[in-house]
Amino acid sequence: MTRDLVLHEDAGSGNCYKIRLTAAHLGITLDRKSYDIMAGETRTPEFLTRINAIGKIPVLQIGDRFLAESNAACHWLAAGSTLIPFDRFGHADMLHWMFWEQYSHEPNIATMRYYKLYVGEENMSAEQRALVPGKIAGGEAALTLMDEHLGRHPFLAADRFSLADICLYGYTHVAGQGGFDLARWPHIGAWLERVAAIPGHISMDA
Amino acid sequence: MTRDLVLHEDAGSGNCYKIRLTAAHLGITLDRKSYDIMAGETRTPEFLTRINAIGKIPVLQIGDRFLAESNAACHWLAAGSTLIPFDRFGHADMLHWMFWEQYSHEPNIATMRYYKLYVGEENMSAEQRALVPGKIAGGEAALTLMDEHLGRHPFLAADRFSLADICLYGYTHVAGQGGFDLARWPHIGAWLERVAAIPGHISMDA
Repeated sequence: MTRDLVLHEDAGSGNCYKIRLTAAHLGITLDRKSYDIMAGETRTPEFLTRINAIGKIPVLQIGDRFLAESNAACHWLAAGSTLIPFDRFGHADMLHWMFWEQYSHEPNIATMRYYKLYVGEENMSAEQRALVPGKIAGGEAALTLMDEHLGRHPFLAADRFSLADICLYGYTHVAGQGGFDLARWPHIGAWLERVAAIPGHISMDA
Repeated sequence: MTRDLVLHEDAGSGNCYKIRLTAAHLGITLDRKSYDIMAGETRTPEFLTRINAIGKIPVLQIGDRFLAESNAACHWLAAGSTLIPFDRFGHADMLHWMFWEQYSHEPNIATMRYYKLYVGEENMSAEQRALVPGKIAGGEAALTLMDEHLGRHPFLAADRFSLADICLYGYTHVAGQGGFDLARWPHIGAWLERVAAIPGHISMDA
């Protein structure tokens, strides 16, 4: 089961870290293959043809099959485990947070971090600069929503630790690198500590 | 099982239609409650407190619980049905398309339609206008990716009709209303016909 799993990744990507963190909680070992996205290594003809037609990582390789989209890869790894609530509403509520992450959280918070850490503020295009105010506002709104929820619940979905926490932890815990001051959202801070204290947790640079 | 289901919606929204289409294929009846999003009806204190803190529809009400995010609501409805592939890879591959829809398809194709049909080109803000070139390019890239895949496969995931097809059908079949000329992507056109021919299908205005 755990053989022939290769994570095509960039170690600094929160989307890739989600998959490694899921695997760590499950005791699954992944082989890792690194790509330099800024050098175009995920845009080569070989990568686009064989691994992911949209030129993005992470991709989880399962034998000779390839699964893109970080949250889908986490779902594959965790299938049948306690990281996915077994009841119908809990499962859907977990997915609700994971879809929300891709629509309302990641495009704001991860992209601001990408601009600052990968692109560099001095190298940003005019188009990227025009997007910044909306991404700051959207990121702050997303963190405020999480904070309010986490003031009333210990974890995001079904009041228990699940893939929703892992997938939101990925970029939330490094939101400061995108310019978001997490001290403004104390319930998020307490939740980050709860998640990091769960046995099996690994850090992003592990 | 099918009682006490209320879809909080806007009938013109593709995200709401996905849920109605899923329910139709499953023979489930939903009560429908309509909101005028342009009149702020999803931003009232009562809506934000009781139904969805982010002020968005659709929300599927299941008894006294509320499930936001269209793709999560579809997953709840379809749990245990043939609309979700039973095998582990097929399920994750279906989710991969649904996460991709929220990240790479909906923010481009649905948002362009929203600008044209709801906001009106003459009423668009400077910020919205600045986003248009990126959304056109992103939407065209998304449709090209779907077209290439659908030239080799009858359906998006697991070579069978699934929630992935329903969730992508929602905004793809009205992409023309956002300015995307679907004649450019003939494999998408053939797939739209295949999906619409499946027994149980309903149109957006049903």
